[in-house]
Parts: sequence; C-alpha cells; structure tokens
Amino acid sequence: MAAVSPLAPTSYPDLPEIGGVRFAAGAAGIRYKGRTDVMLALFDKGTEVAGVFTKSKCPSAPVDWCRARLSGGKARALVVNSGNANAFTGRLGAQATKQTAAIAAKATGAPQSEIFLASTGVIGEPLDAAKFDGVLAKLASKAKPGDMFEAAKAIMTTDTYPKVATAKVELDGVTVTLSGMAKGAGMIAPDMATMLSFVFTDAPIAAGALQAMLSKSVQGSFNAITVDSDTSTSDTLLLFATGAAAQRGAPKITAANDRRLAPFKAALDTLLLDLAHQVVKDGEGARKFVEITVAGAASAAAAKRIALSIANSPLVKTAIAGEDANWGRIVAAVGKAGEKAERDRLAIWFGEIRVANKGQRDPAYDEAEVSKLMREPKIDIYVEIGVGQGKATVWTCDLTKEYVEINGDYRS
Amino acid sequence: MAAVSPLAPTSYPDLPEIGGVRFAAGAAGIRYKGRTDVMLALFDKGTEVAGVFTKSKCPSAPVDWCRARLSGGKARALVVNSGNANAFTGRLGAQATKQTAAIAAKATGAPQSEIFLASTGVIGEPLDAAKFDGVLAKLASKAKPGDMFEAAKAIMTTDTYPKVATAKVELDGVTVTLSGMAKGAGMIAPDMATMLSFVFTDAPIAAGALQAMLSKSVQGSFNAITVDSDTSTSDTLLLFATGAAAQRGAPKITAANDRRLAPFKAALDTLLLDLAHQVVKDGEGARKFVEITVAGAASAAAAKRIALSIANSPLVKTAIAGEDANWGRIVAAVGKAGEKAERDRLAIWFGEIRVANKGQRDPAYDEAEVSKLMREPKIDIYVEIGVGQGKATVWTCDLTKEYVEINGDYRS
Repeated sequence: MAAVSPLAPTSYPDLPEIGGVRFAAGAAGIRYKGRTDVMLALFDKGTEVAGVFTKSKCPSAPVDWCRARLSGGKARALVVNSGNANAFTGRLGAQATKQTAAIAAKATGAPQSEIFLASTGVIGEPLDAAKFDGVLAKLASKAKPGDMFEAAKAIMTTDTYPKVATAKVELDGVTVTLSGMAKGAGMIAPDMATMLSFVFTDAPIAAGALQAMLSKSVQGSFNAITVDSDTSTSDTLLLFATGAAAQRGAPKITAANDRRLAPFKAALDTLLLDLAHQVVKDGEGARKFVEITVAGAASAAAAKRIALSIANSPLVKTAIAGEDANWGRIVAAVGKAGEKAERDRLAIWFGEIRVANKGQRDPAYDEAEVSKLMREPKIDIYVEIGVGQGKATVWTCDLTKEYVEINGDYRS
Repeated sequence: MAAVSPLAPTSYPDLPEIGGVRFAAGAAGIRYKGRTDVMLALFDKGTEVAGVFTKSKCPSAPVDWCRARLSGGKARALVVNSGNANAFTGRLGAQATKQTAAIAAKATGAPQSEIFLASTGVIGEPLDAAKFDGVLAKLASKAKPGDMFEAAKAIMTTDTYPKVATAKVELDGVTVTLSGMAKGAGMIAPDMATMLSFVFTDAPIAAGALQAMLSKSVQGSFNAITVDSDTSTSDTLLLFATGAAAQRGAPKITAANDRRLAPFKAALDTLLLDLAHQVVKDGEGARKFVEITVAGAASAAAAKRIALSIANSPLVKTAIAGEDANWGRIVAAVGKAGEKAERDRLAIWFGEIRVANKGQRDPAYDEAEVSKLMREPKIDIYVEIGVGQGKATVWTCDLTKEYVEINGDYRS
C-alpha cells in the first residue's frame, strides 16, 4: 500500500445525515482481503437521479446498466464495489450487472429499474456477482444515514485517502444538505476522469433539472482534471436528490433555470470542484498539485484544449516533479495543442512571476525566486496566448517515479 | 550521462562516401563542454533539397528559416548545433539564425538562401551565434566525405547513441547511395517526432519529386513513432540530393511518379523507418521497444489514432515497463481514442498470444506464456477492432522511472 499522499487533506468534514439516504459498507471479498469493498446506498421512494459517464467507446457493463436506467429518473439503491471494474467482460459482464441488481432488489425491495451500479478495479476479469449474495441483504438491514464516510472508504482502489465533501445551502429559505464522495487516483483524464463520484442531497429537485445542472457543473470540475491523460471505461458520476427537505417546507424544483436554484448550483459547483481536486491531489505518485490557467485563447474550448495539452505533457509534469520551472516545455505543449497561438505573443507565469514574454525569456525574472516557488506543494501556471478572449482552468499533478512504480506493479 | 540504451544497435554500418557531400564536426561550446556540438555538411552546386517540419504552432527560429528557404529547392550547406534549440527566442532567435547563416555563407562561399539550419537542445535561452564565428570556417576547410558518423555524434543531446543508416539502390541501372542520420530521445511524438534527421543521396532527383517522396514516406516512419506524446518546436527532416551519380550515368528524375524511382522510394521508406526505430529505441529511459498494430478500424487514419492512443497511454507504457500484459489498459486506450469501436468485437494479441476476444478475456490464454513474452526487449501488440478495414502500425517504448529521472533533472 502506498503511503498517504502528501497532498491529502489534514482533516475530514463531519458529514451530516441527509434525509432519505442510508449507507452501509461491507466486505464481499471481490479482490482485496481484510477491507471493505462494497457499499450500498438506500434511497427513500421518490428519489430523483441524474448522471454523467465516461465518453469511452468501450464503457464498462455497469456504465451500460446505469445509462439504460437513467431515463426513468428514479433511484432506490446504489451498489458500488471496488476490486473489479466489470469492464471488457462481454456478455458475462452484462450478466454480472443483472445478477447484482437482482440480488440488490431482493435485499432492498427496490425494483431493478431503480437500482444503480458502479464497479472499479481491474479491467477484463469476470466479476463474480454471487459474492454479493447475502452481503447486500446484511448491508440493507444495517444501513444508517450516518455511515457515508465508511461507504467512501469501501470504494477506494489505489486511492490513499477517502474523498468526501459537504455543504449546506438555502433553497427558497429552507436549508438543504449536499454531500458527495469520490474515488480515483489513476487513469484520470477528462470526459470523465477515471473515477466514481456519488452526490446526495435532500433537496426536492426533479431529475431533468438535476441532469441539466450536473452536466454543466461537471465541465469545470471533473472534466477539467487530469492525472495521466488516460480515460477509464468506468467513470460514473451520479447525483441523487431524495426530496426529504420538502417535509421541512423546501419547494419542489422542476426546472434547472428556476432562480431559487442559484445557491444550490453554486454549492454543487464548489462541491464537485472540491472532490475533483481531491482526486488530483491523490493522483498516483503525486507530490505537487498544479493549477493551469490559459487565457487569451481563440475561444474557451481552445483555452481548455491548450490547458489540457500542458497538463498532460509528460515533459511538463516531470519538470514540475523535478521542481524545475521549465517553461520551454510549456511552450512546446502550447505548440502541439493545435490551437491558434503565436510564439511572439505568448507570456507565461509561474505564480506571480512572469518567466516569458513576447516570444522570449522575460529578462526581469529571478531564477532563485522561481526555484523557491517550485519547491511549494501547489504550483500555479498562467499562460496568456494573446490571440483572443478564451479562458479555462484545469488541474493536474506532477509525474513522479512513484507513478511508474505504482502502475508498473498494479496488476501483477 | 545516462548509460547507453539496452536497445541500442550492437554495431553501426559503414557509411560510404556520397558524391557531392562533405561533413565536418566541431566544438563551438554552445552548452556542453568537451564534446562536439556543431556539424557542417557542404553540398556541391546544384544539390536539391526537400523537407518536413514540426506541426507545432510555436516552431523554432531555424524551422522558420528553413521553411522560408525550401521553396528555392537548392542547398549548399547545412549547419546543425546541439545544446540550444533557438526556440521561443523571439526576435533574438531570428537574428541568431541570420547571423549563423551569414557566418556560414562567409565560411563556405554559399549564398545564404541555400544554407539550411537546425538547432536542438534547451528551449527559450538565446543562442549566441557569435560562437560559430571561426568554428564554421575551420569546419568548411576540413570537411570530408567520410566524416558523416562524427557529424551524427555532434547533434546528439540526451541521445545515448548516434543514429545512422545507409542503403545502396539501383536508379535505372546505376547504383546510388542513400545515407541518413537522426537525433532524438525525448519530446518525441508524431508530426513530427522531436528530432532532427538529415538524409543524403547522390541520386539526381529534383526538389519537387524529392518533396513528394519525403512527405509520403514520413507518414509511416517518423510520423508513426512516439516516446512521450510531446511534440517539439524544432523537428526537422531534410533530404538532400547532390545529383553526383549523374556523372556515372544516373538519369535526372523530375517527377515523383517516375517508375524508375520505385526502388529508391522503397529504400527511402526503409531507411527512414530504420532511423525512426533507432529514435524510439533510444527513448529516454526505454527498456522495451513496442510495435503496435491496429487492424479492422473504420479507416487507416482511425487505426493510426487508436494505435497512437495506445502508444501514448502512460498506463499502457508503465504496464509494459512492469512486464505486465495488462490488456485492460489497452481496451481503455482504444475506448478513449474517440474512434469507432465495439467492446464486443475487440480482440487483442501480445505477440502470437490472443489474450482477449469478443469482449472478454480469451479463456485459452496461458498467463505464464504471456509473462515470458513480456520479459523480451521487443513487445508486439496487435489489436483487431472488428468494425472496418483500416490498419496502421506505430512504434513506441515503455515508460520507466528513468524517463522521469532524466526529465526531472534535465535543465536544472
């Protein structure tokens, strides 16, 4: 087991209970011994659900399962296991999702059409869903509103710490809660990251409005992070709204453009970004958390492509690991992005220090000051392209020998 | 200095003299001490030239220089230095190319419009072209047809061995020679690789025909390799044809579709592929040479994009470094390429062993046999997509801790 990331949070928030959600975690022995590897979340009747998934052309069986059930907009249970991703498992994989859902339906009394599934771990090995038999029934009977943190631990794979976040926000004068968990450490690249994330709220928001908010919010959070440019087959982000706050007077929201949703939207953005940052900070072997902002590009989309080109450049990432402010490699990454750029207009900052301007090294910058800055755990890179108004920010981590070690030994 | 790559050639070919070309290498003290860092190639009058360059939007000053002079189609001299790439050096960079060309023109008697330049090394530091003063005159006076191998050594940066190749081929019954050199070890990704390569022939072929052949040949060679997905600002491939073989009766060829060129074209393809493979085998930290063939894609272009997605996946590359036949990561890389693919039609081979078929692990494969195969220095991966007829092959290397080490320490 790798040591906990030096970028891990120093404390975890207390996760308040959310009306209408109960959690339980257990050990099904999928792959790991002596740890929890399956979590169950149970939702009260009427819970609405939205989701965003990997853009991989070879998605996992649970992703196929969830996509097919999302149109109903209702959820009663979520089953997540670690240790086996049930991906590239063909008909066996589809059978395993069916079997899991059948076991979960029996254990919880929920209809299969309202059961959501996610799996993470090794790809290509058949998942023995029979291992859930008995386990899910036990979890269903012991599920409690307060056990979200244990659930977050159960879905970890190469993660070195559990990832959770929570917020309270006003919905037309009634306080509602929003809490989320995530897992992911490698195979992290946009659309989506290789990660699972589940967010829960007691706000009474209809599935259509939830989906619109989630699809938008993910662009600046989970779809703006990269650890290694590798996109998983299993990425799943689900948002569940139980509506329990209606009992306390919260209004039922059916449209994403309802103005009363504004604080909730902002809180969702912040929460997803927090979870996304936690994923990057647990990037395999990561020692530095890197924020890259590209401004002055031809469009926001161009800015994001350039920013991701920088964030995914192994040469930029290894230079940061070596605490080297090697802006020449940033120039190269801008150049290879394929977006409009002119060498003689480019300017590059590390933190507040401009190291390059108008096509050449900034004569004013002090190498010693930059070196000091590069020793910090957070590195900010700002690139001005100088050809337009497009702007975007993405987050990544450095590329260290530990990344190679973790990923050269993972399966064997 | 890193140890020589374990994938280095065990011997170098004798490089025959090529009529009309003379070489010299020297030390200008650009960056490195105690080694040659500048090479001069002199061409007889009438030498024709063609070139292919980086697709970076931020090309180096020498790339700008060469592009502007290529339309003339004539070359009398080539000056290449290592230690400083003269890239992202703004107006100073353009001035440095002018000054270098002026010094070279004075030293060789060639017009500046027929002088070609290339630089490799650190980006963003001004190149002090005055250092060539005196050095180029000395090189011009001592240049000899036989000194190509020393010239190949002078252009090395993080290369652990010089890269050369040679061939003899019939041009309408007359034997002509084709020899080339290359440098490059990191920042290697298609369009082009981060590399410099210079190829010389005594065949009398006009610039237009040369260019057509070169542009085509590069697609399956230098534009089909990747070390780290990073594209350099400086990639330059130049092909010089002195025409000296005309004295021995070789016909002057003016059209690329001239049927008498067929053996020459085949030899050029083989030579460029040989040099491209040598670049990958010297990939920074490389321990494995990996050939990836994708077949059954929607088109040849789709096949190449999928193959490069696999070749550039850090997770695939680290798995190969760990001698782990982790085909799940290959599936993920196919999935993220964005090209048409269906999980249930995909099949994957390591060498002759099919490890996955029709959407799942091939039940017939023996893990022990695959493990044995993964310990070899050459790894062949074959992926059948099953949706069309498109096919492409690319080459890469593994991603090791040494890559991180080399690139975390390079500049500092």
